[in-house]
Amino acid sequence: MADVVDKNEPEIPLEELRLMFTRQDGFMKTLGADIIDIGPGTATVRMAVSKDHLNFNGSCHGGCIFALADCAFGVSSNTHGVMAAGIDAHITYQAAAYVGEILTARSREISRSRKIATYRIEVESENNGLIASFTGTVYIIGIPHSPEAR
Amino acid sequence: MADVVDKNEPEIPLEELRLMFTRQDGFMKTLGADIIDIGPGTATVRMAVSKDHLNFNGSCHGGCIFALADCAFGVSSNTHGVMAAGIDAHITYQAAAYVGEILTARSREISRSRKIATYRIEVESENNGLIASFTGTVYIIGIPHSPEAR
Amino acid sequence: MADVVDKNEPEIPLEELRLMFTRQDGFMKTLGADIIDIGPGTATVRMAVSKDHLNFNGSCHGGCIFALADCAFGVSSNTHGVMAAGIDAHITYQAAAYVGEILTARSREISRSRKIATYRIEVESENNGLIASFTGTVYIIGIPHSPEAR
Amino acid sequence: MADVVDKNEPEIPLEELRLMFTRQDGFMKTLGADIIDIGPGTATVRMAVSKDHLNFNGSCHGGCIFALADCAFGVSSNTHGVMAAGIDAHITYQAAAYVGEILTARSREISRSRKIATYRIEVESENNGLIASFTGTVYIIGIPHSPEAR
Repeated sequence: MADVVDKNEPEIPLEELRLMFTRQDGFMKTLGADIIDIGPGTATVRMAVSKDHLNFNGSCHGGCIFALADCAFGVSSNTHGVMAAGIDAHITYQAAAYVGEILTARSREISRSRKIATYRIEVESENNGLIASFTGTVYIIGIPHSPEAR
Repeated sequence: MADVVDKNEPEIPLEELRLMFTRQDGFMKTLGADIIDIGPGTATVRMAVSKDHLNFNGSCHGGCIFALADCAFGVSSNTHGVMAAGIDAHITYQAAAYVGEILTARSREISRSRKIATYRIEVESENNGLIASFTGTVYIIGIPHSPEAR
Repeated sequence: MADVVDKNEPEIPLEELRLMFTRQDGFMKTLGADIIDIGPGTATVRMAVSKDHLNFNGSCHGGCIFALADCAFGVSSNTHGVMAAGIDAHITYQAAAYVGEILTARSREISRSRKIATYRIEVESENNGLIASFTGTVYIIGIPHSPEAR
Repeated sequence: MADVVDKNEPEIPLEELRLMFTRQDGFMKTLGADIIDIGPGTATVRMAVSKDHLNFNGSCHGGCIFALADCAFGVSSNTHGVMAAGIDAHITYQAAAYVGEILTARSREISRSRKIATYRIEVESENNGLIASFTGTVYIIGIPHSPEAR
């Protein structure tokens, strides 16, 4: 949806944004998740399931699967150079994931107006197909991201 | 909703369930969250926000707030002695949370049939009121939780 | 949440708003739904289930139950005198409803900031308890409702 | 996802199902919506926006847009020959729709297990692109649809 992006938004190179988000995001470190790709309105975040991610029934915690998707959601919605904050999110769980599986969350923008944008994220397992489907909406605060200011 | 609970469900004392869930849940440890209360269809889970929970904009990560609520959801939906698995969840974010705030997620059952149950969870900050509202639904697998079997 | 309402919002008497919304809402007429109560951030909408509301399996259509809840959502979020538009909504279905049942949807505001507000709506059947639970969020456009201008 | 469909499910020809659903669905008639296509796990439902579908702000009611999507959801989830009932649904609104626009809701199955299936529905306007995005989950009751039995 690059055509609807405000042309006046400050332009920080996407690779610089990726490094900045990686450096500054404590929760992504806690999860052990990495931003492996970033584009205008898109992001891919990856994580290997370990015992630190399991629930008491022995599979990857639903909250952890959501958190991975939410990382991709947060990154993709902040790629236009200005801050955006989550308003709401919905997830459906399609299959369980277990220790050793590599989970990849891919986010893409499905709409973006001046103040509101919506994203769809799929979480997939390398060996096991679709794990979860996520839809999230942000409010575009509009304050520029600035490496210097941070 | 104790009146709709299957009378034939195995009865494990709630305090024993709480200890078992605490011991076996790796992701709750990763989050630094504790089950502080458990009842039939209810659970309270608490966490102090640290820098390990922050997003790249400096507030508690939306995925982390969801994860805390999801811990309460998961525990409350498994208090009837049989396994339940999340089908879907929805969250709305009401306010940001910052380092040092104590977040408490309280879950209660709003309906429970033989195979499906739905829960409402509020996440509140000790000093700052409502942070997020969460609604989640489980499919009741029905396999008994068993300390011996685990 | 009257304390968070912008003091500068134009004040149209609530009963006048109720009559204006009733008169202007074609879809509420199509549903056969009535606004039976309105307050600051709240609304109650009621409907009797007829054969015009049934799905092909013979119970009240899920889309119809949502629509009733959405009427209460829309009215309650527009009670502060300025226009608000739905961003997203989530519903869980707790029980089926049948011809002859009276369904009541009650909406209340759980948060309201300058630009975003969130509402919880319960749909209940007179004889049959909780039918559905709904959570919806609006973007506050901020243009005043004006009887003259319409 | 035809590969995961239970091979033992009774087979009613899809065109017969389409006619049966059309004949029996009172709410679809109330909306003025038509099932224009049906396949295994898919459905397309169409509606022209009239003044009977408007909210008090003059655009197509959010509850009506949801209802149209929900018709496609309900039909697509019942194409496997056995009854399914909605558990939950989530919608995001991408753009407003006005009198005279033709809205088309297309549903497709994104997962189906023995008891749970999830669907994605997009509502699009002929002239105006994406109007709404919908995700819904059903519980598969498993009782066969039977024209004779009805």
